[in-house]
Amino acid sequence: MNPLVEKFAKLGTDNAPGQEVRQAAGDVGGIGDKLEGTAVDFSHGDVNPTAFAPTPGAIEAFVAGEARGGSQAYTEYRGDGALRGVLAERLAAFTGKALDGARELILTPGTQGALFLAIASCAMAGDKVAIMRPDYFANRKLVEFLGAEIVPVEMDYLNVRDGAGIRLDELEDAFKAGAKTFLFSNPNNPTGVIYSAAEIAQIAALANRYGATVIVDQLYSRLLYSGVSYTHLRAADIDADNVVTIMGPSKTESLSGYRLGVAFGAAHLIERMEKLQAIVSLRAPGYSQAVLSTWFAEPEGWMDQRIRLHQAIRDDLLDVFRAVPGLTVRTPEAGSYLFPRLPRLAVPLHDFVRHLRAQAAVTVTPGTEFSPHRIDSIRLNFSQNHVAAVQAVERLAELIGRYRA
Amino acid sequence: MNPLVEKFAKLGTDNAPGQEVRQAAGDVGGIGDKLEGTAVDFSHGDVNPTAFAPTPGAIEAFVAGEARGGSQAYTEYRGDGALRGVLAERLAAFTGKALDGARELILTPGTQGALFLAIASCAMAGDKVAIMRPDYFANRKLVEFLGAEIVPVEMDYLNVRDGAGIRLDELEDAFKAGAKTFLFSNPNNPTGVIYSAAEIAQIAALANRYGATVIVDQLYSRLLYSGVSYTHLRAADIDADNVVTIMGPSKTESLSGYRLGVAFGAAHLIERMEKLQAIVSLRAPGYSQAVLSTWFAEPEGWMDQRIRLHQAIRDDLLDVFRAVPGLTVRTPEAGSYLFPRLPRLAVPLHDFVRHLRAQAAVTVTPGTEFSPHRIDSIRLNFSQNHVAAVQAVERLAELIGRYRA
Repeated sequence: MNPLVEKFAKLGTDNAPGQEVRQAAGDVGGIGDKLEGTAVDFSHGDVNPTAFAPTPGAIEAFVAGEARGGSQAYTEYRGDGALRGVLAERLAAFTGKALDGARELILTPGTQGALFLAIASCAMAGDKVAIMRPDYFANRKLVEFLGAEIVPVEMDYLNVRDGAGIRLDELEDAFKAGAKTFLFSNPNNPTGVIYSAAEIAQIAALANRYGATVIVDQLYSRLLYSGVSYTHLRAADIDADNVVTIMGPSKTESLSGYRLGVAFGAAHLIERMEKLQAIVSLRAPGYSQAVLSTWFAEPEGWMDQRIRLHQAIRDDLLDVFRAVPGLTVRTPEAGSYLFPRLPRLAVPLHDFVRHLRAQAAVTVTPGTEFSPHRIDSIRLNFSQNHVAAVQAVERLAELIGRYRA
Repeated sequence: MNPLVEKFAKLGTDNAPGQEVRQAAGDVGGIGDKLEGTAVDFSHGDVNPTAFAPTPGAIEAFVAGEARGGSQAYTEYRGDGALRGVLAERLAAFTGKALDGARELILTPGTQGALFLAIASCAMAGDKVAIMRPDYFANRKLVEFLGAEIVPVEMDYLNVRDGAGIRLDELEDAFKAGAKTFLFSNPNNPTGVIYSAAEIAQIAALANRYGATVIVDQLYSRLLYSGVSYTHLRAADIDADNVVTIMGPSKTESLSGYRLGVAFGAAHLIERMEKLQAIVSLRAPGYSQAVLSTWFAEPEGWMDQRIRLHQAIRDDLLDVFRAVPGLTVRTPEAGSYLFPRLPRLAVPLHDFVRHLRAQAAVTVTPGTEFSPHRIDSIRLNFSQNHVAAVQAVERLAELIGRYRA
């Protein structure tokens, strides 16, 4: 096969979250009648006012940015300098470690943009990159796109209770085998589990020992449920030249429509990321950057309420799931994802997911987007209208009953 | 050298348009006193109301998009389906050839995003890509980033009057040498010249003969000066499976703060581009996409006036330049760039450009960003306040006098 054709054949998007519209419509011979109810798309959060609207003041900040004209439209490629200074202070306070906005921070078009720039700044064709299983679906594709090699590290999230369950022996094996880059999300996407302080300390120690760069995607690190403690890798005992942290306001803050992300850490890597950004997209949208002025500056109590509302949905959905015989799910400690392992079904997972959409108006993402092993799991983003989400998961439970092996 | 370090060492951005703020500030021993006057940054267009403000209705379209909520925030990766349908009709009418919005069009974060996706869909490490000299500065960097090889094709824009002056023999040599991709801008950036109908026909014929894919960046193809005729490559006699056209509303329409671009053409390439977009940025900003509803639907007479105003600035700047002994400049036929070749200077071009900024508050882009040979030229984006632009070019003329060899 032509190498270019082969390369793109591996890069699928049809099962990716948000792309379901591209799948063939209609039911393909499902069991039983349609279930009535409000359609819920769990492939991503619902940013409508009936669910979780954007941070107050976001649109006003955008309009004010547009009114500033050219200085806001054309920022440095790494983002507006003054804004980076402000954000660096807030991110330093949040993560517990100093940050230089001039040298150690870049604004990107979404966190996806930040992830691409970070990985492409650390790895090239032939290099090895350690990737968690399961983890955010694009991590694997990013490595494949670069022609680099994935070294998988398993996470025993269903059996471990104290921490994420990262197989540290496998991470060390990956480093021993030559992986110089490790990419992971914390809180983990899709499971919602958090790495313990001990796990983070050991990841840091291994990275130091093998001189590896760690890219940590902390997209959901603000949405922590009660009783949870979170450890920022960049504040751990790790060589600061070897860490990049990625965040953004698109999830908890529901600002996804503006496409904003940030990456911060080692100045020499941020420098590379800016050079790459010049090539792939120039800069985060100028006017949208202005919206970041609202980030970490939300109204008093707003974030607490947002967490409380998500925790209430989480708990109600867990109740429904835990009544399904044979279904296993770990309680998410952060973020808005649930990743239940389904009981054995009589149909392949991807067929079940399509029946679910056609028969119950419920969209979920198959577990295979996160790990090739997870042909038994589905991911739900429960940042949704509370009532609609519970009813949708009740329909999901009924369909599991119909399709049970 | 470490291959990754080597790769990034080649990717510079410090002299790229818009990045001048990163250069060391202050004058470094220039000749003579500072020249007073309004600072003008010719590295990009001025989108302030005192120069060329965004299309009427743009911010209102954005605000309406934000109010639509989730459906506007989360579009397909290739962009909102309904909007693509509308734009396809308008782009078909503009280019004179049918276009299927469902299969042949993708919305991207800026035209830079579109260029990256297009090139990366056609070429990989080791492949040869034909690139014009001079041409848009990022084209060369895109090819280098992919590890592909640039096969340069010269453009004799200063001596030819009928057409751009593409050396078609060199293009054929590039194809013979194995280049399967040809990327060029039309109107040409930085010179503002247009390829003649005969040149486009021959590019098409050569692409057909050698089975090469042509990516044509038509970013400025709406801003045509009086008496000029423009030929759309996609409407020429060329294999439709081998053409991708790139446009966007960031220049003539001054919508750069929204970061929007489009690519349209061969469905199999658009498909690849979407797969890549899923990796590098997911999608064009959701709310910003709504602004494209104003594109090719500007108020009656608005575009004509915008062209007239630019043509008046062009003509006044040309008058100033042509009074400078030894300076050569071709009259731009489209777009808002001027690319004068300066008389011989006593200092290297990059030093002159820095003196110009420090002593005369005039920012221009060195010709070397567009062709390694153009150590004698500078590019100016004259989409500026008319009076300020003329005065700035008068100061530039004075500094040429001071630094003349």
